[in-house]
Amino acid sequence: MLIQRLTIIGVGLIGGSLARALKQAGECEEVIGCGRNLANLNDAITIGAIDRYETDPALAVKDADMVVVAVPLGTMPAIFTAIRKALSPETIVTDVGSVKTSVVNDARQYLGTHFPQFVPGHPIAGTEKSGVMASFPELFQGRRVILTPTADTNPRACQIVTEMWQQTGAEVLTMEMQHHDDILAATSHLPHVLAFSLVDTLVGKNQNTELFRFAAGGFRDFTRIAASDPIVWHDICLANRDAILNGLTQFNAGLQQLENAIRQGDSEAIKAIFSRAKIARDKFSHYSQ
Amino acid sequence: MLIQRLTIIGVGLIGGSLARALKQAGECEEVIGCGRNLANLNDAITIGAIDRYETDPALAVKDADMVVVAVPLGTMPAIFTAIRKALSPETIVTDVGSVKTSVVNDARQYLGTHFPQFVPGHPIAGTEKSGVMASFPELFQGRRVILTPTADTNPRACQIVTEMWQQTGAEVLTMEMQHHDDILAATSHLPHVLAFSLVDTLVGKNQNTELFRFAAGGFRDFTRIAASDPIVWHDICLANRDAILNGLTQFNAGLQQLENAIRQGDSEAIKAIFSRAKIARDKFSHYSQ
Repeated sequence: MLIQRLTIIGVGLIGGSLARALKQAGECEEVIGCGRNLANLNDAITIGAIDRYETDPALAVKDADMVVVAVPLGTMPAIFTAIRKALSPETIVTDVGSVKTSVVNDARQYLGTHFPQFVPGHPIAGTEKSGVMASFPELFQGRRVILTPTADTNPRACQIVTEMWQQTGAEVLTMEMQHHDDILAATSHLPHVLAFSLVDTLVGKNQNTELFRFAAGGFRDFTRIAASDPIVWHDICLANRDAILNGLTQFNAGLQQLENAIRQGDSEAIKAIFSRAKIARDKFSHYSQ
Repeated sequence: MLIQRLTIIGVGLIGGSLARALKQAGECEEVIGCGRNLANLNDAITIGAIDRYETDPALAVKDADMVVVAVPLGTMPAIFTAIRKALSPETIVTDVGSVKTSVVNDARQYLGTHFPQFVPGHPIAGTEKSGVMASFPELFQGRRVILTPTADTNPRACQIVTEMWQQTGAEVLTMEMQHHDDILAATSHLPHVLAFSLVDTLVGKNQNTELFRFAAGGFRDFTRIAASDPIVWHDICLANRDAILNGLTQFNAGLQQLENAIRQGDSEAIKAIFSRAKIARDKFSHYSQ
């Protein structure tokens, strides 16, 4: 068995699904949950995601061989600070945050001498739903998990975190942390920013509910993205600010070109943009599950 | 039986699905297809969407009691011109275009005295796929179809088109045509413009295929939208230009606010935008199938 005692700090969609996947794979003896929402923690026990819980992170990590921190990025410093002195020297700590440079900085600062046992990680999986009741053990099957170990990361810790994710059915790969953050800014953070902004502009500010009645394919996809947790995404925007702002600058320039083409009725330019997008998408759609 | 001879001009996803739904409902005796792609028309016969085809629109509409024009908006004038003299006085003509003011103008101009028999229509349904092989008879079940009759439209023709769509399982409602175009600009046209633009900017121009490998939820939804037919969407952008440009102006203003908030690290402003979007979406998600 890979893990005797697994502690999940933040028992939501990701943390809950990971715990359930590892239990189902028979690779985890005991799961301790930690969080602030008692109703959610009791739900987690009811559905078998965790065996018991502690509300104090320091108590939750006691004698754990693996601690998974699955909280919003802005909460990482408080969690690292709270658990630092309670960790056994061999305990491996990992996270599931969507931005890796900020988490690595936080871990280096707040985990102190335990930093080499910290393995930065990010499963590229999720839905727009939040909370443990939205979790399911198959969430990571066929998905990718990116680890961004630093020069100081213990290779043995990295290996065990790799095996943990492989047991959930995920493909694990490693990447330089800034490269991860640049890619995710484009593929995840920027689309969320655009979707939140469009939904807020069209219906948040003026409560134009009629739009929802006639939400065709396009808007429905945007509203689903905009149903994501506001705190999680606020934290991502601040943690990956530069990469997201770079992405916005690129996006604005491209959109301005298209807007000009529409305004001028420039058919060739409009068709060129739409065709290039479709060709790129169709050509590489096998990458896009 | 509602329709003896149905002519579908443009046997693609929408036209093919409509024909198959009406045949399945037993409300249509014979379906004549019309188009320029013979392989697609033969596919349409093979899967039972149409009984036979003509490549000349004037021949295709002969003795039809219902003609459905399901071609890109820019092709409407040519089709109306081609069929005008071949229509029997009682033949009802309808369309499925995503913009209604432009189609009504085209029909008024090119159908001439037949204009009162023309019922402008738009089924709010579809997928990112094109062609008759992507059609399926259940496409319209539980979806809405908007008709935008004018003061000149024959009420009896409008009634029969209503019944036709109801037979496919759709809910039919009527609306003023400019109101339709304003709503669809927001819920469908603007999201498509943003998705095409983002996908082109990120991967169309520089072939950054790595982004597809790590396409998280957000980007995957955008790429699916951007897989839509470039010609169809080019035509929509020109036909509904003013409403789309108005939507873009609103969107740009909202995005600029959010961008400023991210740049300044203004947590309250970011959270306000994200929360308002999520609250609006969650509150009205029962509208959004």
